[in-house]
Amino acid sequence: MRTLIKGGTVVNATGAVVADVLVEDETIAAVAAPGVFENADKVIDAAGKYVIPGGIDAHTHMEMPFGGTFSADTFATGTTAAAWGGTTTIIDFAVQAKGTSLLSTLDKWHEKADAHCAVDYGFHMIVSDVNDTSLKEMESCIAAGVNSFKMFMAYPGVFYATDGEILRAMQKATDTGAMIMMHAENGIAIDQLVAQAIAAGRTDPVEHGLTRPPELEGEATSRAIQLAKVTGAPLYIVHLSARHALAAVAQARDAGQNVFAETCPQYLFLSLDDLAKPDFEGAKYVASPPLRPKDHQDDLWRGLRTNDLSVVSTDHCPFCFVEQKELGRGDFSKIPNGMPGVEHRMDLLHQGVVGGKISLARWVEVASTTPARMFGLYPRKGVIAPGADADIVVYDPQATTHVSAETHHMNVDYSAYEGWELKGKVDTVLSRGSVVIAGNAFHGREGHGKFLSRDLSQYLV
Amino acid sequence: MRTLIKGGTVVNATGAVVADVLVEDETIAAVAAPGVFENADKVIDAAGKYVIPGGIDAHTHMEMPFGGTFSADTFATGTTAAAWGGTTTIIDFAVQAKGTSLLSTLDKWHEKADAHCAVDYGFHMIVSDVNDTSLKEMESCIAAGVNSFKMFMAYPGVFYATDGEILRAMQKATDTGAMIMMHAENGIAIDQLVAQAIAAGRTDPVEHGLTRPPELEGEATSRAIQLAKVTGAPLYIVHLSARHALAAVAQARDAGQNVFAETCPQYLFLSLDDLAKPDFEGAKYVASPPLRPKDHQDDLWRGLRTNDLSVVSTDHCPFCFVEQKELGRGDFSKIPNGMPGVEHRMDLLHQGVVGGKISLARWVEVASTTPARMFGLYPRKGVIAPGADADIVVYDPQATTHVSAETHHMNVDYSAYEGWELKGKVDTVLSRGSVVIAGNAFHGREGHGKFLSRDLSQYLV
Amino acid sequence: MRTLIKGGTVVNATGAVVADVLVEDETIAAVAAPGVFENADKVIDAAGKYVIPGGIDAHTHMEMPFGGTFSADTFATGTTAAAWGGTTTIIDFAVQAKGTSLLSTLDKWHEKADAHCAVDYGFHMIVSDVNDTSLKEMESCIAAGVNSFKMFMAYPGVFYATDGEILRAMQKATDTGAMIMMHAENGIAIDQLVAQAIAAGRTDPVEHGLTRPPELEGEATSRAIQLAKVTGAPLYIVHLSARHALAAVAQARDAGQNVFAETCPQYLFLSLDDLAKPDFEGAKYVASPPLRPKDHQDDLWRGLRTNDLSVVSTDHCPFCFVEQKELGRGDFSKIPNGMPGVEHRMDLLHQGVVGGKISLARWVEVASTTPARMFGLYPRKGVIAPGADADIVVYDPQATTHVSAETHHMNVDYSAYEGWELKGKVDTVLSRGSVVIAGNAFHGREGHGKFLSRDLSQYLV
Amino acid sequence: MRTLIKGGTVVNATGAVVADVLVEDETIAAVAAPGVFENADKVIDAAGKYVIPGGIDAHTHMEMPFGGTFSADTFATGTTAAAWGGTTTIIDFAVQAKGTSLLSTLDKWHEKADAHCAVDYGFHMIVSDVNDTSLKEMESCIAAGVNSFKMFMAYPGVFYATDGEILRAMQKATDTGAMIMMHAENGIAIDQLVAQAIAAGRTDPVEHGLTRPPELEGEATSRAIQLAKVTGAPLYIVHLSARHALAAVAQARDAGQNVFAETCPQYLFLSLDDLAKPDFEGAKYVASPPLRPKDHQDDLWRGLRTNDLSVVSTDHCPFCFVEQKELGRGDFSKIPNGMPGVEHRMDLLHQGVVGGKISLARWVEVASTTPARMFGLYPRKGVIAPGADADIVVYDPQATTHVSAETHHMNVDYSAYEGWELKGKVDTVLSRGSVVIAGNAFHGREGHGKFLSRDLSQYLV
Repeated sequence: MRTLIKGGTVVNATGAVVADVLVEDETIAAVAAPGVFENADKVIDAAGKYVIPGGIDAHTHMEMPFGGTFSADTFATGTTAAAWGGTTTIIDFAVQAKGTSLLSTLDKWHEKADAHCAVDYGFHMIVSDVNDTSLKEMESCIAAGVNSFKMFMAYPGVFYATDGEILRAMQKATDTGAMIMMHAENGIAIDQLVAQAIAAGRTDPVEHGLTRPPELEGEATSRAIQLAKVTGAPLYIVHLSARHALAAVAQARDAGQNVFAETCPQYLFLSLDDLAKPDFEGAKYVASPPLRPKDHQDDLWRGLRTNDLSVVSTDHCPFCFVEQKELGRGDFSKIPNGMPGVEHRMDLLHQGVVGGKISLARWVEVASTTPARMFGLYPRKGVIAPGADADIVVYDPQATTHVSAETHHMNVDYSAYEGWELKGKVDTVLSRGSVVIAGNAFHGREGHGKFLSRDLSQYLV
Repeated sequence: MRTLIKGGTVVNATGAVVADVLVEDETIAAVAAPGVFENADKVIDAAGKYVIPGGIDAHTHMEMPFGGTFSADTFATGTTAAAWGGTTTIIDFAVQAKGTSLLSTLDKWHEKADAHCAVDYGFHMIVSDVNDTSLKEMESCIAAGVNSFKMFMAYPGVFYATDGEILRAMQKATDTGAMIMMHAENGIAIDQLVAQAIAAGRTDPVEHGLTRPPELEGEATSRAIQLAKVTGAPLYIVHLSARHALAAVAQARDAGQNVFAETCPQYLFLSLDDLAKPDFEGAKYVASPPLRPKDHQDDLWRGLRTNDLSVVSTDHCPFCFVEQKELGRGDFSKIPNGMPGVEHRMDLLHQGVVGGKISLARWVEVASTTPARMFGLYPRKGVIAPGADADIVVYDPQATTHVSAETHHMNVDYSAYEGWELKGKVDTVLSRGSVVIAGNAFHGREGHGKFLSRDLSQYLV
Repeated sequence: MRTLIKGGTVVNATGAVVADVLVEDETIAAVAAPGVFENADKVIDAAGKYVIPGGIDAHTHMEMPFGGTFSADTFATGTTAAAWGGTTTIIDFAVQAKGTSLLSTLDKWHEKADAHCAVDYGFHMIVSDVNDTSLKEMESCIAAGVNSFKMFMAYPGVFYATDGEILRAMQKATDTGAMIMMHAENGIAIDQLVAQAIAAGRTDPVEHGLTRPPELEGEATSRAIQLAKVTGAPLYIVHLSARHALAAVAQARDAGQNVFAETCPQYLFLSLDDLAKPDFEGAKYVASPPLRPKDHQDDLWRGLRTNDLSVVSTDHCPFCFVEQKELGRGDFSKIPNGMPGVEHRMDLLHQGVVGGKISLARWVEVASTTPARMFGLYPRKGVIAPGADADIVVYDPQATTHVSAETHHMNVDYSAYEGWELKGKVDTVLSRGSVVIAGNAFHGREGHGKFLSRDLSQYLV
Repeated sequence: MRTLIKGGTVVNATGAVVADVLVEDETIAAVAAPGVFENADKVIDAAGKYVIPGGIDAHTHMEMPFGGTFSADTFATGTTAAAWGGTTTIIDFAVQAKGTSLLSTLDKWHEKADAHCAVDYGFHMIVSDVNDTSLKEMESCIAAGVNSFKMFMAYPGVFYATDGEILRAMQKATDTGAMIMMHAENGIAIDQLVAQAIAAGRTDPVEHGLTRPPELEGEATSRAIQLAKVTGAPLYIVHLSARHALAAVAQARDAGQNVFAETCPQYLFLSLDDLAKPDFEGAKYVASPPLRPKDHQDDLWRGLRTNDLSVVSTDHCPFCFVEQKELGRGDFSKIPNGMPGVEHRMDLLHQGVVGGKISLARWVEVASTTPARMFGLYPRKGVIAPGADADIVVYDPQATTHVSAETHHMNVDYSAYEGWELKGKVDTVLSRGSVVIAGNAFHGREGHGKFLSRDLSQYLV
């Protein structure tokens, strides 16, 4: 089966060329000047459109247990929504529960995901319980293609790891070449502020933001960086939201430390003002770290340009407003933390291109190429090149995407961007050579997506 | 005419794939998985070798007038040497003499270079005389494909521009999208130190280094950055050599300013110790900025990794030891400033790959892709992709390059790296589809190289 | 003659005590607990008032030639106004004209000042012409008690010194222990902006501010600091106005370099808004560096607290609005640069105490003790201690000072603070034991003030 | 009773004057020019000597329980040794044991100290147990003259406070004007490193240093600063030893935050090399933070000059080598943490004056005046001024101090400075007007020292 994507502007991370892309079965066979290949079993006309490597969302939470409920997207619904949005790979998080093993956790997540995903997927591992056994198991996880381990400086009593535990896990990462991912907020201090707010009757969703000041994200980021320095471990800061944290990352990177960071669309486009919406509407925007005051946005865009922020992921973790978010009426601390987003990342970032905040090449880089290199998927993913998986998005920069909970494909009853009109639209999506989105219809299937056993990060010279 | 480069590891700036490269006449027609193309007029076996975009040396000085003499390479000899070393594009500097026009200068340099180059070439323009006429002429230069203008904070009385002149040229750059390139050393202060050294009888070549302290490179770099900030101009610091300057660049880049910098192999591999060699040997290493104390080298390698240094060029400006460098016996300030290097850049940087200082992809990026993007040549140059000029180097990482003045192809009677054995070797070089180096022989010709009319820098979102 | 100042709160730079001060003739004989001394020839009741060392204004320009005119205060009128305002020492600037000698300049300034001052005075020397002779003369100046040498990075063609000249003067300072004072603005670049503004018909006083952007003060400050580092010279930045410059000073001070800075009341209390006043009113506020946007003020107050700003001087350089400032109608660059202020420094800074911006002790420190230590006058000046000159101000924190050109004592036809009501008032002033201000009347005399031959700075460990 | 100290050089924090000091009973009655007072009940000849305010050691631990033993000096022996060394005030730490109340702790410490001290003393309070009761008790402590509360980020299970507890205590400090003092080392991470070292058989005293890397002091210092910023609390970092921590303090101070730091003589004069002494000798140098590599010393001296380090205290906490330090043979983590030092601080710092590292005035400032102002004792202590307590040291800069355990007065069987010859010597010491040291003999008495109820810090404008 040969597919030819003709006449598009092929955009890779360093720039664009007009070229045709020949796909043989699941793989890109060639990138060629127009005219080199004329015939194929199937021809897709990409004239006037971008042909980009499929998006890689390195931070999603499907079916994630949280506070007695689960995030609302299954791997089936979530990866389908991803495909709709031009994302052809997700890396989700297997979540170790305290007292359980990493390997049984991994098994459990394979059970949830295998045979259900519409696009390819990999796993990071959340390490909640650091002990001799779990540290040893990290090696088995790496052998099983899961070599990035997320830890939390927030959520005491749930995911929280002490600095001593972090240090031990980092030592193991140094020994094995694994990556430590960090949720960097000082949860111990934050919990005091939260308790004080509740005690004082300040219970609205906006308090979620006010009790998690950006200084406490900056602090935790700095601390994680120092622990990484002491141990020699590579460190990837997830969902960076505050300029305080960005400054810490930039300083470490200038010094040559292997420190990386991602931000998320919600921090680039939304703000504390959304959290402050009346009538409990703010609950829709409760995630951690919280949305920040609007003036942080420019700093984050700048960080994307300077590469102090290397990746944009979604931290997709949807909870329905009805029944789920509503658990926190009268007590913001009970609102499940998380927002939907896996479907809109590519489109939202494209607004940055349209608005001159990032270049076209940088769009592809932060949304696909760098996540692939960061998490050991390149050149299988993240690039339009021969030998790569034919995960390809034909993107129409002239069309418009209308965002609404009524039309989106995520399994959640609201949209954080309800009513937004976005410039640009996913036209056609191939996942390993199969057309999964075309003509405004989903042509994929549950179970098409394969598990990706990942190599070590390619950023660790 | 179809050429097929088979079985090599194609390295672009984001990583490597095993692929074949099909060349039609002067252009890359396709990059394809092995087997897609079997036949061609000519097949080059690249198995076990790297296939990389030809090197781009964005800073050379062929036949440059300096202190009554000329740099020893003509465009013919210099571009031939470049080809031997895997560099298929140079960007040389047209040098405005005071009192002359930019356009007549450009004509003069076209006369020197046109019909003489072995590989493609472009020009930057050195602006020595800022006035209403020359500022206006900048626009014509840009229209003529020369859109980067170098100025000097050093060399009072020769190339030196005052801060007021720099400011005016920067304003023009802001208006036109041109790039200002800066030789950033405080020449006014340095000249005092030089005069004091001579007066005190300190006349050896090492004094060249001692009278140009790194603080005065850092200072000038900061000053250029501030002038660029006031005017909004993009700024490219040439031949950055000192950690003091690197710190200034890093800070500006963190702040999101359009500031870029290159360093040169001599600053990565040589040091003040070389300048201090006895018996006037140090004269071979006189260039400005001077070689720095050895401990700057690690900072520069780190800068390459962090992308605070984006490009490695050579500042190739050879003067023979006999008769040219010897002009400065008894007075180091009379030693012509400059070192040969165009032939060895790719090999020297490959040592960084071998030694784990930079990745394979980063090698290609700093030596080819970024210079192409920085100076408006991408995707014509700097990438292995369909539509690009077939400037391709087949590089053998297992072979060895022996460096010696006896065997090198630059027209200069010494080598700064005499006797060095470098891991890796240029195997075959194509310039716009023509084999110019193969089988340890030069197959190109004077005049093959074409002038490159360049677009504006692609780094200015 | 014994004078006893009874019952006041004696404030020195580290804090306050209730104590009596006994003066014998010109000198403080003792500081004693109440009751130790009961009788004296004269008793001044200071109950409820502060007893502080007389203010030292380390930056004034009396009778200064500037652009064909002279600053409007003579040494007689200016020092009388100083006394009214609680300042008992000024350090004025002798101004070398190009082509003249430092020593003849010093003679000339002695002629102007000697026998005319109402309070004690010293001189700094402005070096406009750096050459072998003037460098040699610096030693004679030092021997004559003038050991601080001011240079200008602004005012090309007038006071401007090149970086090479600055470097040479700094080398001499290093050899002799002298202090280099610097007007740090990039005058070369500024002159271009000024010329462009005039050419474009932007001629109002506010353009004075807009053509001297704070980046160009920051740049020059950094440059001066680097030149000082290369040469080892101590450096004192005069009239720092911009946060950009403050950042450079703070960084150098953190690094342990002997770098100091003063600011002036006009930068703490006035802003670009004043320069923008209509009907040429803005001309009253033209000084260099210019008044800055209001948001710089908080940074300057913070700098005063952190000691990155060590001194507050006035840069008193009054030009009458009528006939003098008016020279610049239609061309802001012709407005004489300078503002009156010597009379109001102590009162204005006291507002900082009242408003909680600085402590009472810090008030005395920045206005008296530090200038004394910085410029080699301590403990003769700057402290209430036995052996010190009895330069004493009894200050009433409860009274009010009304500022107006109608009532002030400076010889200038406007006040920059017209109509301001300041909390606190100079009650009684002694200069070397003589009462010069008391009961709202001047009791001093022209010629009472003596020339102060100064020691080297006491901040250079 | 009138005592006259004649002819000395009276040194206060801003400089020196030759003056006589008249003492009436316990208080300084006057500072006067020579000759003002001729007669007194007792005359002390200070010609050729310095007359300085008695030293204030703001950080001592007498009779402190630690790991099953007690620091070896009682309040009687420790304060006597202090007097011998020219220190006339100590501020010791009352140590709350977990589960006990602050007020009962304070009572207990009064029992230990009252009627036993040879010089005046105050208390800080160590808060080990943060809860509603102890937070409330902080107010009572403040009312009782104890308004500085020390917390530990080190020593988990003993003194360690969580970031949440620190946050709560800081909020109380903000409300009350109290000072939070912080032992800033990341004890949680350190404990892992210690356990790993022990497990690996690395048990020598030097491991104490190696398992507490300076990055983990820098980290904790930054963290404390951020918590202070979030809460608005003033913060005083105790015993800062590492340049990493100094950088964090300097940055916060530049930003205007109320952050202060002390270092100790051992960090200025000793190093990791001492900890590495063979035959368990290194145990003598075990204290936390540990002695650092020698190259930190220059940074600390620079910090003293720049005032990023404001105070030098001793952290005097002596444990005898025999039986106490020896508890850690075979397991460095069992070595009691602490070193003797209260007797030698003034002399050791005087070496900095002799060596040109700090000025004479700065010696007095960091050793006496600033601690007095920092901890609410000024002007009762810390200055030679009328009304102040007559705590006076006559210091002979020409004499020599021989340091040895055989001759020192601290109750400990070794000296960290054994055999050192120090330039300068305490000649005579008055505590509240009483001569306690003179003629190489102790003339004081147990119980002479009084408890000092302290005001709030005077550095919090």
